[in-house]
Amino acid sequence: MPKKTTIYDIAKALNITAATVSRALNDSPRVKKATKELILETAKQMNYEQNKLAQALKSGKSYNVGVIVPYINSNFFASVIRGIEEELYPKGYHVIICQTHDQENLEIENINSLLNAQVDGVLMSISNSNIETNPAFKNLVRKHVPLIFFDRKKDIKGVSSVTIDDFKGAYMATQHLIEQGCKRIAHLSNDQSLEIFQNRFLGYKQAILDNGFEFDCNLVVETTSKVESGSLSTKKLLSLNNPPDGIFASCDFSALGAIKEIKAHGLSIPDDISVIGFSNEPFSQFMELSITSIDQSPMEMGRIAANVFLDEVNSNGNVKSEKHIILAPELIERKSSIKELLLVD
Amino acid sequence: MPKKTTIYDIAKALNITAATVSRALNDSPRVKKATKELILETAKQMNYEQNKLAQALKSGKSYNVGVIVPYINSNFFASVIRGIEEELYPKGYHVIICQTHDQENLEIENINSLLNAQVDGVLMSISNSNIETNPAFKNLVRKHVPLIFFDRKKDIKGVSSVTIDDFKGAYMATQHLIEQGCKRIAHLSNDQSLEIFQNRFLGYKQAILDNGFEFDCNLVVETTSKVESGSLSTKKLLSLNNPPDGIFASCDFSALGAIKEIKAHGLSIPDDISVIGFSNEPFSQFMELSITSIDQSPMEMGRIAANVFLDEVNSNGNVKSEKHIILAPELIERKSSIKELLLVD
Repeated sequence: MPKKTTIYDIAKALNITAATVSRALNDSPRVKKATKELILETAKQMNYEQNKLAQALKSGKSYNVGVIVPYINSNFFASVIRGIEEELYPKGYHVIICQTHDQENLEIENINSLLNAQVDGVLMSISNSNIETNPAFKNLVRKHVPLIFFDRKKDIKGVSSVTIDDFKGAYMATQHLIEQGCKRIAHLSNDQSLEIFQNRFLGYKQAILDNGFEFDCNLVVETTSKVESGSLSTKKLLSLNNPPDGIFASCDFSALGAIKEIKAHGLSIPDDISVIGFSNEPFSQFMELSITSIDQSPMEMGRIAANVFLDEVNSNGNVKSEKHIILAPELIERKSSIKELLLVD
Repeated sequence: MPKKTTIYDIAKALNITAATVSRALNDSPRVKKATKELILETAKQMNYEQNKLAQALKSGKSYNVGVIVPYINSNFFASVIRGIEEELYPKGYHVIICQTHDQENLEIENINSLLNAQVDGVLMSISNSNIETNPAFKNLVRKHVPLIFFDRKKDIKGVSSVTIDDFKGAYMATQHLIEQGCKRIAHLSNDQSLEIFQNRFLGYKQAILDNGFEFDCNLVVETTSKVESGSLSTKKLLSLNNPPDGIFASCDFSALGAIKEIKAHGLSIPDDISVIGFSNEPFSQFMELSITSIDQSPMEMGRIAANVFLDEVNSNGNVKSEKHIILAPELIERKSSIKELLLVD
């Protein structure tokens, strides 16, 4: 790549100081007209372009907003991003996206990349549950760059968040399985250091207890957000002496893995085992055996997060009022959990 | 948002010139030691941080690479991005992503945003078939920022590309349907101003002609990459006096729409109509009626595109050798096209 022409190159070519070049390019009255014309002409010849970023360095605004998500190819995160874009584009902001693949080191590097790209704010769903100890993150907070968490959040002073009520969503999912006649409900949990997954576990447990069932820790298996991991966890559950008759998966991908494994064992869904996921990914609807799930209104979540950012960025540094917005989950009933017998009733 | 401290603020606070502040911060020997210490102390007090970007403005490198795709939530594009990341992260580069939603104006704005974020290169799959007339794009080319097209490309002097052989993929798909006994094969085409879709149409047409069938333009319906659009186009095809017995869709999403519509008409797949998609999206495999598709090796495409970028960026402005790498497509046979009768044979 040819080196970009800088004011230092122009200064060298004309044997003047970079400060003079800078003043001339910024149309300062301190530079003589003839000198100014010479500098502008040279800048043009040398293919120099005063970019918006250099101006942003002075004004403190780039009109770029960074969004960090664990994965871009989850419909949930893609829809949140769509919601953010729809709110921010009409206001002149652009959205640049980074993904962490749920790796803490990539999250740190993404924050640094976005800071270096001079974003006006960062909207993120965290992958690192100890994010507050991360130097790049501290730097972000110290610089007063507006920061908003969505979905995967952590309570940090001064940081707003937009989430859904994961406890309630999990409670609804478990209650639904109980209403379908399930008596031994398993839970494919996920990283308990992240609030959302902890709340999904707690909502599940509370529904079990509220319905007079005994809580059995053997029925809770930690799983990742991958299809294969859902299959593996389900294999463990099916090998129990007393296997479950219902599975509440903390995401649709692990629910899909559970379904594959149950079928591979020659069992029927929902008659032998009912399955419910979380997130309402489109594939859960497309499948022949459609998957019951919890909708999280991702577009709405993105729109609200974008508006929290706009409020912060427009507050001009006034004392920031931390906002915590919690959206209501919605149960979407499909074939993987609705027993025909009950439908006939 | 509080305004970021700039060298101009420090200069004002100390009643000296910004040039002196800049020199002191860059440890220039032209500034006296005492002045330098005062400036550094003031910069610290005022929360000033000399960022990597300001340094990048001078060095011409940010170690950020921009990737522009039509949609982030297509598995194909997400996988290409994954391939790019896997090659670039170990080399110290970070990937920032923008999506265009297939809108020409967003493509232009994305290019500008990435240029403002000082990316060292842009890897993109185009949404605008007239991209070469776009001022932001011309600016990108003029600045010699390494630019690589993947998948959706256009032949532009000096711009390398990595694609698959779309003509061959489409030919293979159509040939496969003919081998399954289909005699009237329809094509859900897509935006013919984009090379990849034009090549898919041409490959389809060639396979039809090479097998001695007559080409019937009534069997070609322009469709978008959406499920709903696939359904709508299929509805038109099914209302023909002589409807098709096979459908080659230019993407898996429109293939899914076709399948939904065929089922809604009470017809059987593949017995009445065989369907084949393009891209090998994961849902095509997950479905009960799995969809036959053409795999495009997206991870491989991303890895190769990243390496073309690394070659260009490391060439230090030597005459750029344009590269055009074409990967081979692969037919993935599944239930939506394989007739049992033939399987028994």
